[in-house]
Amino acid sequence: MMRATEIIMKKRRGQELSTEDIHAFVTGATDGSFEDYQLSALLMAICINGMTDRETVDLTMSMAFSGDKLDLSVIPGAKVDKHSTGGVGDTTTLIVAPLAAACGAKVAKMSGRGLGFTGGTLDKLESIPGMRIDLSKERFIRQVKDIGIAVIGQTAELAPADRTLYALRDVTATVDSLPLITSSILSKKIAAGCDAVVLDVKAGSGAIMPTIEKSIELAETMVRIGNRTGRRFSALVTDMNQPLGLNVGNALEVEEAVDVLSGRAGGKLAEVSLQLGAQMLVTAGLAQTAEEALARLREKLEGGEGLKKLAEMIGAQGGDPRVTEDTRRLPQAARRIDVPAQETGFITGMKTSSIGYAAQALGAGRMKKSDRIDPAVGLVMKKRMGDPIEKGEPWCELRVNPSSDVNAARKLLADALTISREAAAAPALVHAVIE
Amino acid sequence: MMRATEIIMKKRRGQELSTEDIHAFVTGATDGSFEDYQLSALLMAICINGMTDRETVDLTMSMAFSGDKLDLSVIPGAKVDKHSTGGVGDTTTLIVAPLAAACGAKVAKMSGRGLGFTGGTLDKLESIPGMRIDLSKERFIRQVKDIGIAVIGQTAELAPADRTLYALRDVTATVDSLPLITSSILSKKIAAGCDAVVLDVKAGSGAIMPTIEKSIELAETMVRIGNRTGRRFSALVTDMNQPLGLNVGNALEVEEAVDVLSGRAGGKLAEVSLQLGAQMLVTAGLAQTAEEALARLREKLEGGEGLKKLAEMIGAQGGDPRVTEDTRRLPQAARRIDVPAQETGFITGMKTSSIGYAAQALGAGRMKKSDRIDPAVGLVMKKRMGDPIEKGEPWCELRVNPSSDVNAARKLLADALTISREAAAAPALVHAVIE
Repeated sequence: MMRATEIIMKKRRGQELSTEDIHAFVTGATDGSFEDYQLSALLMAICINGMTDRETVDLTMSMAFSGDKLDLSVIPGAKVDKHSTGGVGDTTTLIVAPLAAACGAKVAKMSGRGLGFTGGTLDKLESIPGMRIDLSKERFIRQVKDIGIAVIGQTAELAPADRTLYALRDVTATVDSLPLITSSILSKKIAAGCDAVVLDVKAGSGAIMPTIEKSIELAETMVRIGNRTGRRFSALVTDMNQPLGLNVGNALEVEEAVDVLSGRAGGKLAEVSLQLGAQMLVTAGLAQTAEEALARLREKLEGGEGLKKLAEMIGAQGGDPRVTEDTRRLPQAARRIDVPAQETGFITGMKTSSIGYAAQALGAGRMKKSDRIDPAVGLVMKKRMGDPIEKGEPWCELRVNPSSDVNAARKLLADALTISREAAAAPALVHAVIE
Repeated sequence: MMRATEIIMKKRRGQELSTEDIHAFVTGATDGSFEDYQLSALLMAICINGMTDRETVDLTMSMAFSGDKLDLSVIPGAKVDKHSTGGVGDTTTLIVAPLAAACGAKVAKMSGRGLGFTGGTLDKLESIPGMRIDLSKERFIRQVKDIGIAVIGQTAELAPADRTLYALRDVTATVDSLPLITSSILSKKIAAGCDAVVLDVKAGSGAIMPTIEKSIELAETMVRIGNRTGRRFSALVTDMNQPLGLNVGNALEVEEAVDVLSGRAGGKLAEVSLQLGAQMLVTAGLAQTAEEALARLREKLEGGEGLKKLAEMIGAQGGDPRVTEDTRRLPQAARRIDVPAQETGFITGMKTSSIGYAAQALGAGRMKKSDRIDPAVGLVMKKRMGDPIEKGEPWCELRVNPSSDVNAARKLLADALTISREAAAAPALVHAVIE
């Protein structure tokens, strides 16, 4: 108790916390010896007064070691992971993980569930009939050894301090803080045991950080801190001023990933996936240059080896691999509803978060942790940033089931578009690469 | 919940909270709709980013109105109160309240209990055999009407928001903040219904604020904010670089108050009490100038009318008024132990808080709210700041009972004195008067 107030006072005064202070704080968060109100006071002091890199590294490592740590050393080769700060229509994992595995990377990925917006990677995978994401650690490691890829749910024992702190941050206005975001993301990646991690930091109207500058600052911080922990980190800052893919929703995003891996769909989702994959191969030491890596990834994509690897993973985890041949085997929504544009002109802005929340209202995302997701619902974009559009022309299509809240979705979408008389350039896809 | 995080975020960003924001915060603290961890995050943001005067006034008034409010308007005349930020050997209330009442002021005082150091005014009063401090509101008001003075315990229903916030501040390193201290003290005084309040802000080694500058800043803030609430506030900044009286302990301090009111003791305690009393009469509009007020107070002191008023109050509250004639009727400790000086020279410094904690260790103060106080124990100062002293000569005397922790007290006192070869001037008694 005494210790807690001393540590809080130190940070309140803007002083640097020692390694022991930070360890006591993280231990206190894990075993409950620091009360929630003490943790939240300290979190607020950190938000306002910041942390040095040394403190952030200590916080990251203390949190990474606050629970179980996965030992992937029994898997030969370069273990590589990717992490997205979260966006709308952001299905890159289902494309890039199989492609990187097809290029020889060992992709041992533990994912979290989505809260807000649409579902997370786990929710998308669970839309595949029979698919299991709750493998034991032993089976997870064996699968990565055997076929080079596994994507499962993060166990509760991984970085438990982060779970406590994250829940508090969410209700005390202490989410957006560079040292707190950095330590939260990196600690889980380090506890999950990977050697190399590529971070996909989103920037724009559907991203955690509103501006490109803030996103670059976050990406630079995470890479700088990450590389001080003895692992290899790199980051791409990619655009989230519109949904990345055309499909927003769980089964819908699996369908689009299959379409990309089959060569039937290209566009921004494919392009960002390939860029991330190239960065993964380079960071893992499996390619010398991004160009070389890209060439290999494109070859695997065109040769259908990425799609084959995805089918292999689905099969290994109990799912029906035939969804990769016929996406109609995925859950389908009952009804389609067009959403018409209200003006004529060029699309110069999208409230991407509103599009995400609209999909959530239809049933594709959770409001509360306990909510059930409807795998079939969501929406499909018909237009992109920069496109011309006429009043009354549909710019997206809702995929709804009887329990979808269509009115709420319509309301959210009503002012989601900015339509101007003058055309504007579409935003760049990759704003920065940080190595 | 949503409202809570919005308000926290506003203050985190250094923005000014609206009257409605502050009302929602105080209501949330009172009815539990804001969680403790949200309150503590907001308290920390207030500590670091501060509050404007307007915000502090709103916080004070919201807290004052968070529970019962005493209506003293049925009492004719000027209702006046005093409040000390707390010190060691600080018995002014028992001297100045009867003297001011003897001069015609209506002294309706609600006191808190002491935590840490020695007891509060209530604990001192309770050392008088039979004395009751738990009068009903009706009886309290009647007594003030009848004899011009009553000192009782603060009811739990008075400013309940402050109780919640204070308990949190104590364990989250958010105690020392100008807007939080100010609103905590003023809200209770305003809820207690007085027209005029004199604040005694202590400065020095036994005070909440360590430096004279900080104490003056606090006093100025409280007077400025207080006078914006429609009541009349003034403040003295008085010295706490040594115990104010010679006696430290509960019955011991009652004894010294009786000695002062009998004309048997003078010194710093008498002088500060008279200064506070003069300020009370002026602030209440009962005297034009401090000189005029002082002259009247001295007259009442010398005429024994203050002592008579104290006896009257004790009698009205069920206590034995004969303690004012014979202080041996107060509880007496079993044993006296001298504490010798360890060097020869002049006393140039005292750790006044250590002297307070030593008295606490003997049983005169509480470590926890639930601790029982021993009314008889404490210590008596033999030397003052500036005095010459010889090695081995006693500088204070412990008054102990069998349950006193004498070793802990000795340890605390071992380095409480600074003894120098050169004499230094004793500190000024009143550092500032703020009206």
